[in-house]
Amino acid sequence: MADSEGQTYIHALESRFTCKRYDPEGHISDSAFNTILEAGRLAPSSFGFEPWKFLVIEDRRLLADILERAWGTKKNADRTVLILARRGVSAESEWVHHIAHDVQHLSKQDEQARLQAFSGFQQNDLQVLENDRTLFDWAGKQSYIALANMLSAAALLDVDATPIEGYNRDALEELFAAAKLYDPSEWGVSVLVQFGVHDESHRAHPKTRRPFGEVVEYVR
Amino acid sequence: MADSEGQTYIHALESRFTCKRYDPEGHISDSAFNTILEAGRLAPSSFGFEPWKFLVIEDRRLLADILERAWGTKKNADRTVLILARRGVSAESEWVHHIAHDVQHLSKQDEQARLQAFSGFQQNDLQVLENDRTLFDWAGKQSYIALANMLSAAALLDVDATPIEGYNRDALEELFAAAKLYDPSEWGVSVLVQFGVHDESHRAHPKTRRPFGEVVEYVR
Repeated sequence: MADSEGQTYIHALESRFTCKRYDPEGHISDSAFNTILEAGRLAPSSFGFEPWKFLVIEDRRLLADILERAWGTKKNADRTVLILARRGVSAESEWVHHIAHDVQHLSKQDEQARLQAFSGFQQNDLQVLENDRTLFDWAGKQSYIALANMLSAAALLDVDATPIEGYNRDALEELFAAAKLYDPSEWGVSVLVQFGVHDESHRAHPKTRRPFGEVVEYVR
Repeated sequence: MADSEGQTYIHALESRFTCKRYDPEGHISDSAFNTILEAGRLAPSSFGFEPWKFLVIEDRRLLADILERAWGTKKNADRTVLILARRGVSAESEWVHHIAHDVQHLSKQDEQARLQAFSGFQQNDLQVLENDRTLFDWAGKQSYIALANMLSAAALLDVDATPIEGYNRDALEELFAAAKLYDPSEWGVSVLVQFGVHDESHRAHPKTRRPFGEVVEYVR
């Protein structure tokens, strides 16, 4: 049973591709889309702090503005998701207290112990407190786990997808600040991802990956 | 069909947990482990540059040294994987030429066009060329997609897993440099992950996640 789930997953990963052209008439069901978002929501993260948020962009004008500033986006995708990463996720932040208190329901004592461990971890072990950028990139890494889960769900659901780093950071952040989409001192753009149905004319490039023996090394 | 695959995946994500204690007698099959590694190998990455490598640590002495420097690791896990991220992945790097030429088999002309796009992307759009750290963190983000795929495969295979950021960067890198495990100018530690069978005495914390409506926001 589990073996066959594993093979189904590998097959889905082998078959998926980064969609470059979508069918303008192609739609994916709300149920499939919710499964994709749910897979992202359930992603694990460092200390369970989930430093992410998913904005589903349905405002047509905003969407057009995004497409203009993100060359990696495709205009006929059915759904466009902006994955935000949280800024300033340190032990002293409101965010960490929110998760520890409201989500993880830690007692005051447990919260203190956890935040102390987290503080030492960020400062001494992983060294992500060097500056705002290293801390934001650390949150960004967590959000890529959520992104990967969404892509896996899409592949398993036969939904086509496009993960997108191809955007101009300054132009997007300026746009979102002007649109008051979120508080830029709290959130920043991590990555975008689109979903839909590939166009009939779409020809995926053959998948290229280094061979197993070059990627995996046994240290014996 | 695809719907049921989606539900199977969500169920696996709901059931998985970060394993804190492994059964010292618990083993996972080579076939399951290979499926997990294969899921990582097949992960997508920016421009398809796969800036990662997976070291499976089977040397007992080295493993003990790692456990000492990475408080997040568990001593009875059956398999321990060190995920490395590539340093210095810019358009001028040997790495990018290797992938474009030997893996993607681009013509000289296509390779030039691709590297030019990549250079502009890194410099102007995503702004990852600020310094060595921002460039390494960008590669690290890609490697988290591979990590997430491994965790998804493990969940689908009923294999227990522990993703680990809990390590001392300096201590680990010093250890690996002394052991000449890799060239530290080319690779750095991104994240670790262990797999195995949870101990009978293991009680997973109930999974906590912010509710769907707090994570997902529709912009209409």
